[in-house]
Amino acid sequence: MKLAGYGEDRLVTELVANLRHFRKEVAVGPGDDCAVITERGSRWDQLLKTDAIVEGVHFLSSAPAAQVGWKALCRAISDIGAMGGEARHALVTLGLREDVSVAWVRRLYSGIRKAGDRYGVEIVGGETVRTPGATFVSVSLAGRVERGRAVLRNGGRAGDAVLVTGKLGGSIRGWHLRFHPRVSEGRWLGKTGWIHAMMDLSDGLAADLPRLARASGVGWRLFEEVIPVRRGATLHGALTDGEDYELLLTISSENLPKLLKNWSRHFPDLSLSVIGELTPEMHEEPRQAGGFQHF
Amino acid sequence: MKLAGYGEDRLVTELVANLRHFRKEVAVGPGDDCAVITERGSRWDQLLKTDAIVEGVHFLSSAPAAQVGWKALCRAISDIGAMGGEARHALVTLGLREDVSVAWVRRLYSGIRKAGDRYGVEIVGGETVRTPGATFVSVSLAGRVERGRAVLRNGGRAGDAVLVTGKLGGSIRGWHLRFHPRVSEGRWLGKTGWIHAMMDLSDGLAADLPRLARASGVGWRLFEEVIPVRRGATLHGALTDGEDYELLLTISSENLPKLLKNWSRHFPDLSLSVIGELTPEMHEEPRQAGGFQHF
Repeated sequence: MKLAGYGEDRLVTELVANLRHFRKEVAVGPGDDCAVITERGSRWDQLLKTDAIVEGVHFLSSAPAAQVGWKALCRAISDIGAMGGEARHALVTLGLREDVSVAWVRRLYSGIRKAGDRYGVEIVGGETVRTPGATFVSVSLAGRVERGRAVLRNGGRAGDAVLVTGKLGGSIRGWHLRFHPRVSEGRWLGKTGWIHAMMDLSDGLAADLPRLARASGVGWRLFEEVIPVRRGATLHGALTDGEDYELLLTISSENLPKLLKNWSRHFPDLSLSVIGELTPEMHEEPRQAGGFQHF
Repeated sequence: MKLAGYGEDRLVTELVANLRHFRKEVAVGPGDDCAVITERGSRWDQLLKTDAIVEGVHFLSSAPAAQVGWKALCRAISDIGAMGGEARHALVTLGLREDVSVAWVRRLYSGIRKAGDRYGVEIVGGETVRTPGATFVSVSLAGRVERGRAVLRNGGRAGDAVLVTGKLGGSIRGWHLRFHPRVSEGRWLGKTGWIHAMMDLSDGLAADLPRLARASGVGWRLFEEVIPVRRGATLHGALTDGEDYELLLTISSENLPKLLKNWSRHFPDLSLSVIGELTPEMHEEPRQAGGFQHF
């Protein structure tokens, strides 16, 4: 059986199911935005994330190289933010076609560097390899969060309000190369102590919300009329385009009013919208209704 | 200017030179086998490494998938070993062609898993992405070493004896897919406190020894007649084939006898050979005489 059509979630679920867990310091393994490692005696938990972007899939050969570099690092930073963490140290692997120009690589790296400087991430290592195929950038990122305070996907509860930051859809027209990872927002949200579950939106709300709900063992309902749609995008796009890199989070209705009030004071320029709720019954849907599927 | 012919070392040196270093906890950044992160109050330093292998460069499409997986993880483990560290948590990114079979991916992953189980590394996360080009496996690995005890490349001193573990050359006939990373050996060597500089041999002695010497600000001399050549390989191959994944290390001549004596007691099945010495004068050679160049 070929990968095409098999489904990324299904493949990953299967591969991960066979992994052995023998290191007791691993608090969260595969399946969330980041892995969480707890060290005895430390007031911090470590967050580990890896992410790759590939030419022809996540960026076109014609895309400005500096923006490709920015995107490569910011995608991983977004995942650290979605745990309520602080991004710190990155390793960058460049897989380069031989006919790529040295100038292109320099611009790519300048974009990576710019993102690192902007978000406090130091590039501590990496490597370059040649590839006969598509150019790729693989980033791994280490971050941290106060011990036991990582916000996971699986903490959602029936009755929770579902919220998103910013606007969704139409990312392909430029946002996907220039987005701002919501890391200070995620960190602030985590510190409130009110957020039950959080993740970043990379494959589109229609794929990602069911993932959060499944991890939490609950169902979900969307209020489609209030989903914040990016100018020029459609509701369908807001659900399925992907690459929004906004935060998806849930909170009890009790804490919702004070969250919204404090949010607008701290982040006056970024919307935080209630778009649905978690429900008691889990949906039965082995495959999502929409959203980006890698295979 | 195209990458081909530009030289990997030159490109990497240039990219790295522009990086800003603003995180004071970063004890060692790019340029060694691993990055070293020091945390206040911890008795451990963290080691971070990333490494990728690409179809058509590091493995053939026809290579057994389980061995490809083994190789992918073991390369990174080898780098942790070369710092005297302990390998712990891995993130694995698979870049897969759509026409790859699900069975192939399962076998690949079983090889990764086997290497993890063998060397105490837990797979804590990762992702799969589609690629229109060559399949790749990108691994990032977190490890640790007792605080301040990482063995770097730059500690070599003029007069040091230069040693290697095992035999060199001819890796392409199978060793490169089945090798045993020298992580327990590296850890033991680091703990002796006698090793001035250490790295793993990935691009061949003719490329890697000059790197160690340059980092240490010294020159080097090889005793070619005593270089341990793998059965069926040539001296030239031992110098330039690459992918040996043996340890290259230096030690003062004073400590050499007791090292050799203790080594043979702890590792009776693996040779440790004196193959040269470090000399006072740095060589002038912007490009290596041999060894594997990625571009």
